[in-house]
Amino acid sequence: MSSLDFGEILEIALGIGLQFLVLVIAFLIVNPLGKKLISKLLHTSTEKQNVSEARVLTLEKLLLNIYSYLLIFVFILMIFGVFNLEIGPLIASAGVVGLAIGFGAQGLVSDIVTGFFILLEKQLEVGEYITAAGYDGIVEEVGLRTTKIRSFDGTLNFIPNRQLEGISNHSRGTMRALVDIGISYDDNIDHAIRVLQDVCNRFSEDERFIETPQVLGVQQLGSSDVVIRVIGQTQNMEQWSAERDMRKAIKEAFDQNGIEIPFPQQVTTIKQEENA
Amino acid sequence: MSSLDFGEILEIALGIGLQFLVLVIAFLIVNPLGKKLISKLLHTSTEKQNVSEARVLTLEKLLLNIYSYLLIFVFILMIFGVFNLEIGPLIASAGVVGLAIGFGAQGLVSDIVTGFFILLEKQLEVGEYITAAGYDGIVEEVGLRTTKIRSFDGTLNFIPNRQLEGISNHSRGTMRALVDIGISYDDNIDHAIRVLQDVCNRFSEDERFIETPQVLGVQQLGSSDVVIRVIGQTQNMEQWSAERDMRKAIKEAFDQNGIEIPFPQQVTTIKQEENA
Amino acid sequence: MSSLDFGEILEIALGIGLQFLVLVIAFLIVNPLGKKLISKLLHTSTEKQNVSEARVLTLEKLLLNIYSYLLIFVFILMIFGVFNLEIGPLIASAGVVGLAIGFGAQGLVSDIVTGFFILLEKQLEVGEYITAAGYDGIVEEVGLRTTKIRSFDGTLNFIPNRQLEGISNHSRGTMRALVDIGISYDDNIDHAIRVLQDVCNRFSEDERFIETPQVLGVQQLGSSDVVIRVIGQTQNMEQWSAERDMRKAIKEAFDQNGIEIPFPQQVTTIKQEENA
Amino acid sequence: MSSLDFGEILEIALGIGLQFLVLVIAFLIVNPLGKKLISKLLHTSTEKQNVSEARVLTLEKLLLNIYSYLLIFVFILMIFGVFNLEIGPLIASAGVVGLAIGFGAQGLVSDIVTGFFILLEKQLEVGEYITAAGYDGIVEEVGLRTTKIRSFDGTLNFIPNRQLEGISNHSRGTMRALVDIGISYDDNIDHAIRVLQDVCNRFSEDERFIETPQVLGVQQLGSSDVVIRVIGQTQNMEQWSAERDMRKAIKEAFDQNGIEIPFPQQVTTIKQEENA
Amino acid sequence: MSSLDFGEILEIALGIGLQFLVLVIAFLIVNPLGKKLISKLLHTSTEKQNVSEARVLTLEKLLLNIYSYLLIFVFILMIFGVFNLEIGPLIASAGVVGLAIGFGAQGLVSDIVTGFFILLEKQLEVGEYITAAGYDGIVEEVGLRTTKIRSFDGTLNFIPNRQLEGISNHSRGTMRALVDIGISYDDNIDHAIRVLQDVCNRFSEDERFIETPQVLGVQQLGSSDVVIRVIGQTQNMEQWSAERDMRKAIKEAFDQNGIEIPFPQQVTTIKQEENA
Amino acid sequence: MSSLDFGEILEIALGIGLQFLVLVIAFLIVNPLGKKLISKLLHTSTEKQNVSEARVLTLEKLLLNIYSYLLIFVFILMIFGVFNLEIGPLIASAGVVGLAIGFGAQGLVSDIVTGFFILLEKQLEVGEYITAAGYDGIVEEVGLRTTKIRSFDGTLNFIPNRQLEGISNHSRGTMRALVDIGISYDDNIDHAIRVLQDVCNRFSEDERFIETPQVLGVQQLGSSDVVIRVIGQTQNMEQWSAERDMRKAIKEAFDQNGIEIPFPQQVTTIKQEENA
Amino acid sequence: MSSLDFGEILEIALGIGLQFLVLVIAFLIVNPLGKKLISKLLHTSTEKQNVSEARVLTLEKLLLNIYSYLLIFVFILMIFGVFNLEIGPLIASAGVVGLAIGFGAQGLVSDIVTGFFILLEKQLEVGEYITAAGYDGIVEEVGLRTTKIRSFDGTLNFIPNRQLEGISNHSRGTMRALVDIGISYDDNIDHAIRVLQDVCNRFSEDERFIETPQVLGVQQLGSSDVVIRVIGQTQNMEQWSAERDMRKAIKEAFDQNGIEIPFPQQVTTIKQEENA
Repeated sequence: MSSLDFGEILEIALGIGLQFLVLVIAFLIVNPLGKKLISKLLHTSTEKQNVSEARVLTLEKLLLNIYSYLLIFVFILMIFGVFNLEIGPLIASAGVVGLAIGFGAQGLVSDIVTGFFILLEKQLEVGEYITAAGYDGIVEEVGLRTTKIRSFDGTLNFIPNRQLEGISNHSRGTMRALVDIGISYDDNIDHAIRVLQDVCNRFSEDERFIETPQVLGVQQLGSSDVVIRVIGQTQNMEQWSAERDMRKAIKEAFDQNGIEIPFPQQVTTIKQEENA
Repeated sequence: MSSLDFGEILEIALGIGLQFLVLVIAFLIVNPLGKKLISKLLHTSTEKQNVSEARVLTLEKLLLNIYSYLLIFVFILMIFGVFNLEIGPLIASAGVVGLAIGFGAQGLVSDIVTGFFILLEKQLEVGEYITAAGYDGIVEEVGLRTTKIRSFDGTLNFIPNRQLEGISNHSRGTMRALVDIGISYDDNIDHAIRVLQDVCNRFSEDERFIETPQVLGVQQLGSSDVVIRVIGQTQNMEQWSAERDMRKAIKEAFDQNGIEIPFPQQVTTIKQEENA
Repeated sequence: MSSLDFGEILEIALGIGLQFLVLVIAFLIVNPLGKKLISKLLHTSTEKQNVSEARVLTLEKLLLNIYSYLLIFVFILMIFGVFNLEIGPLIASAGVVGLAIGFGAQGLVSDIVTGFFILLEKQLEVGEYITAAGYDGIVEEVGLRTTKIRSFDGTLNFIPNRQLEGISNHSRGTMRALVDIGISYDDNIDHAIRVLQDVCNRFSEDERFIETPQVLGVQQLGSSDVVIRVIGQTQNMEQWSAERDMRKAIKEAFDQNGIEIPFPQQVTTIKQEENA
Repeated sequence: MSSLDFGEILEIALGIGLQFLVLVIAFLIVNPLGKKLISKLLHTSTEKQNVSEARVLTLEKLLLNIYSYLLIFVFILMIFGVFNLEIGPLIASAGVVGLAIGFGAQGLVSDIVTGFFILLEKQLEVGEYITAAGYDGIVEEVGLRTTKIRSFDGTLNFIPNRQLEGISNHSRGTMRALVDIGISYDDNIDHAIRVLQDVCNRFSEDERFIETPQVLGVQQLGSSDVVIRVIGQTQNMEQWSAERDMRKAIKEAFDQNGIEIPFPQQVTTIKQEENA
Repeated sequence: MSSLDFGEILEIALGIGLQFLVLVIAFLIVNPLGKKLISKLLHTSTEKQNVSEARVLTLEKLLLNIYSYLLIFVFILMIFGVFNLEIGPLIASAGVVGLAIGFGAQGLVSDIVTGFFILLEKQLEVGEYITAAGYDGIVEEVGLRTTKIRSFDGTLNFIPNRQLEGISNHSRGTMRALVDIGISYDDNIDHAIRVLQDVCNRFSEDERFIETPQVLGVQQLGSSDVVIRVIGQTQNMEQWSAERDMRKAIKEAFDQNGIEIPFPQQVTTIKQEENA
Repeated sequence: MSSLDFGEILEIALGIGLQFLVLVIAFLIVNPLGKKLISKLLHTSTEKQNVSEARVLTLEKLLLNIYSYLLIFVFILMIFGVFNLEIGPLIASAGVVGLAIGFGAQGLVSDIVTGFFILLEKQLEVGEYITAAGYDGIVEEVGLRTTKIRSFDGTLNFIPNRQLEGISNHSRGTMRALVDIGISYDDNIDHAIRVLQDVCNRFSEDERFIETPQVLGVQQLGSSDVVIRVIGQTQNMEQWSAERDMRKAIKEAFDQNGIEIPFPQQVTTIKQEENA
Repeated sequence: MSSLDFGEILEIALGIGLQFLVLVIAFLIVNPLGKKLISKLLHTSTEKQNVSEARVLTLEKLLLNIYSYLLIFVFILMIFGVFNLEIGPLIASAGVVGLAIGFGAQGLVSDIVTGFFILLEKQLEVGEYITAAGYDGIVEEVGLRTTKIRSFDGTLNFIPNRQLEGISNHSRGTMRALVDIGISYDDNIDHAIRVLQDVCNRFSEDERFIETPQVLGVQQLGSSDVVIRVIGQTQNMEQWSAERDMRKAIKEAFDQNGIEIPFPQQVTTIKQEENA
């Protein structure tokens, strides 16, 4: 090692640099070409069959992803080849570097393993509305390493797959609309339940509801009001608009029937001023 | 390694690609066929015997799961075979990659070990209502790697089994309905307890209750009210509807007997305005 | 490896499948038989001796547990034997898999080591009331890997033993009943303490109390009240009912002696409306 | 391995079972005998010398603990001997199991290392009042692996020693009694301080106090009161009763001197009703 | 080792020191020269092509980064060479040091792996507004090891890339302006919605909005007000100014139409003074 | 191993026991003797020189600590010798035990490494007031493994050094006294600042202050008051008493100048009872 | 090992002790000499060049740091030499100790790696105001292992570099002064904005501001007030004093223009006493 002088190192560095450049250029040409090819082939082959749009999108993204990583893998192998010629044995003998890389790269492997099972078990499809790792939104792309989720406010979130421990998928099956409404302690509970059920029945023809919503009963004896719960099964993604309309209808029905939605209550005992 | 030129690598890549394609197609054919076979065999064999529905469902899911993983295992072995021919030794000699994979895949192994014991110790059955890892809902499927739970609002949650540390199973035995009710500091405690016990006795014939609910006594001297606790054992999954009906009955009994459920209380001493 | 064609692999898979089936059936027969044998032997041998019920239950559960794990261990060894014939060497040579399993299974070993010491040091017995890992309830079963705790509301909790770091056992010795009661700032403290001690003395004959409860003194000068603390040692598990009765007795004694339990207090200085 | 048939395995299992039984019985006899011997020897040898009670208790517990673990260690070695004859080499060759055990048992080793230093550095003695790992109470036993702490409410807590990171020992030296008392913004601060110092002087003869408590000054200009701090050094474990008596004395002195302990204050500006 | 005396060690230390100095000086000369060269080359080559400013900036930063690390890598190799001559074998034989370095450096490797994928997957570009790892701001520089983010208040944050798990990129696509507005329970909901929609329509010509904002409906029946939600898609980074203008317009429209934005409400029941 | 019978093991155990006893006795004699020797030598040698008390104390504690650990190290080596004769090879061959110990003891090594640097970098001296790991108090002893901190209330805290990540040392240089004082929105800010600066000037001769405290300006426009900040540099450990005296002086100056320290403010709009 | 008797061990220990002493003394002489030399050389060489004070300070601290660690490294090597002669091989053969040290020392290596990059990437300079790891203050010294930060209250914080994940440097570029001010719902928003902009314009000549501060608009429709935001770019470290002066000026301008900064608002509906 002591016989390595500056000239030799420069020479090697230049050699490596040239090989590196050639590889980068090759990569930049092959990469977009391959991607277009895959997209075209996939669309041609699935057009004739009865495959859902989302599934095709997911498949396309996945194939492009695998293609990308395969390409990068081959690319890195080649770069390793370039470096191995001169510096490789030195690294290999170090061992320490290997250990550090092994530890440092475990996150990457963990991402890929998790990503593989998310795709295999179809936990996500492009276009579904999910909650995972504290993010909330529509899936834009499922990759082997990263998943992209578009939040409601327009933000695009990049989440490493190993963070996706426990995925709540809100696009699988019917949802429940739930409205908790407080009435005054002075109002008659039976009367309020009848009025609420009348409101519910009005929604029986609503296409968003799968079945007529129902009044469950007294959910809580709160500090200021008696809370009554109304519940109903809706089409997927229609639950929020259904809840909004039910809230409006209930408020108006209560106004017509003289049922009070009470403000916070307090009983105050007034004492005379001590120093008076 | 230095003798690897671009042509050779392309050739290898194409060869691998072809073998890969054949394997994928074979996999796509064998997978659904095997699954149908297993389902049919299981249903035929259990129909004659007295086996609970849930148990059959769990068994079916488990068998399909093991079948899937076995198939994937064989599939991956073959793919490894394909790659081993050319690139394998290179990887094997690296060691670093092995370390990274070992670390990265420990989550997967942990999932399978935990999943195995969840199934072995029957901690979950399909259709049970559980709380685990912060999720709450009905078990839809118990797999070796992932458990699916359907939340009350309709969301489908995919939870890796290693997250299921500490499972609260709400479908094993009778449950307790519990109502805490506050009365005014001015009301007579003995009177309120008598009224509450009367309400409880009305539920003695209720099929949801296993035994007549009981008044326990003064649970708390709160800041605004004296809290009295009522408790009763119910059929599994009937505790909420039982509690709702008891709340309504207690509220109405208190109204009839003139017992007050007080609002938050405060004593205010009024001082004259200083600058007046 | 390159000489493995599809036919051979299928053949192997079928062979493995058959051996696997035989093992599963044998396991399903031997398992229940052994368990019944152990239960009977234990009950016969302990009936003549003076052994507490709980201890026998714990011992029985533990023996059944060890038996189960031994059986499974032998069972897995055999399955490994089945697989080793064909695929084993391949796995063995990989090393990576070994590393992953080693990491993934450490939770299991940790469970067993902790479970062993919980049993050895008698930290838990079946039927005791404990708090551990955020769960609260009666111990239903102590296993080598998992402990089952029945919550007050009827839920059955399965907790891996490694989560049981720091166990609070509420069933070992006498407990303390503690009532903190606030009196008005205008009331005489000595008078209130005398009334409270009178109430305490009434409980001196109560079997739930081991000694007459005592008034400790002024625990806090609160924002609205002077808090006085009463304390007493009770029989195990009787502390809640004792506290409930003491609260009721104190409330009624205060009513008779004209001592006020004050509501939250506030002094309000009224200013005239600025724009008037 | 393929030559192992069912008969042979059963034979081996039975042989192991027998040896296992003999070992268990031997253990159950030797264990209690040794413990009694150690206790007697220790008490005989320390009776003549001037050794504090607590120290003897700690020493006895420690010796019994070491004896127990030594016995169990020998016991496990023997059981390993029993198993090694037949299954041992198989395990040894696996390596994976070793790794898993190594990881899983690190908690145990960590407990023992920490426990050893807690005993060596005398951080705890039996009978001392401590706070550690979120538990609060009197130390009942210090073991090599587990420490038992009795909470104030009577609960017995078992804490693995590795959880005891940072021990607050409240039984080492004099403690401080501290009373923060709020006076009205209208009261004269100098007057209040004089009254408080008078109360403090009354405690100068109190045996619980090591020196007469002192008024420190204005600790805070609060939202409703001017907070004055009183402080004094007390005998260990007497700080709570001292604080309770000081609170009572201060309250009564303030009543006599017309100093107000104010309720929460608020200034309210009243506006006329808008719609009137 | 025992034959190493002080003189020899000093001699070695001086020798190392000299070689070290030469290397440092060489490094200080080569480093800035190379950086300028890279910047110039990049700008010359991209000027003719249609490349976005941000992309060029990112590319430049990345190239400079890789160049820096390559240089440092060569530099460290040479220093290792210097040290290897005398002390190297000693370290190599220790092994312990290697293990410690392997563990300690894993953070560094993790940074680089993550940084590589952030750049590869284009999760960030210089000049974008992002939220990650609890920091919020404009990206100033994306490096292989560290990312620099400029907060709104002017602070410059240096974040190791491994902390960037889950990046929320707010500069990818249109954003949503959202205003929640509370109206009185006494106001007519339909009237308020009409007024709100009028306000929305006034913004239909606003260039910041991509489409006219819409009133969604009753979002919540709050404790003091009925909350109505208004929503609209805006140009990226224009959402805050759009929201500010909508808030002002809504407030003024409500004033004109006599719709009340209510203050917190409370119902107070006055009791007479008890002691009066 | 199969040839080990019970007799042999007992014999070995007894032999080990004897050797163990001799070692323990030798340790108990050598330990205190060595400690006294070190203390005497240190005090004799530092008496003549100008060394601060605290430094001598720290040095003494450190030397005693190193002596203790050296002694224990030799002691353990000997005990290992005793055990190695018979059981050692068995353990050595296991490897598993080694792994477990290596993991379990890392906390200990971490303590010593951190402790070494705390002492080397003089982060703590005996007698300094610090905050670290959530503990607050005066350093009583700095050891290689554990640091003892005496809290203000008299509690003695034992903290493993590895917990001391980030030490806040309050005894290094001058401290700042800071008083935030709220005035009424109706008061003139300039007037209040003049009065405050007058109070500050009165402290210009106070020895606790290094320079006259200054009024900074309007720190906050609070919900009920305009908060003004006063600040001044004080001698170390005098900041609390200085703040207490400044608070008292400010309160009294405000009383004399008619500046109000306002209570929490609220504007209440009274509505008539709806049902009246 | 069994042939090691007490005499030999003592002899060895004494020999080690002597060698240890000589090394310590040599260390205590060489250490301060070298430090002075480095400081002088640095100051002489940088005096002639145009180097900023802070940079020289940082460089000096770093060089002294590296010098210290190099010295300690040589020192430890020598001590290892001393010990190696006798006890070394024993340790080396143990392996376990090595593992423990490797794990325990990873924190140290992590500190140095992070410290190296903090210095390399110039994330901190002595004298800058930063926030990191929950500490806030002026950097006093940047070391390879520890960074010292002086808090505003005078406390000196020692922070291991590995805790510095994510550094917020507040001394890099202009800062923003931001004042949020609430006006009454009854006030005219346009009028208030005009008054605020007038106040802003008064600061256009203020040297602390880089540009005239601007009124942004309605930031929030709060529960009691309409919040308007004012913002302006200031010289570094001048933002707090600028904000204080703006708050004072705004308050006084509002007083002159009759714009109200409202107290918290509430609407109270009074009900008659029920029992009256």
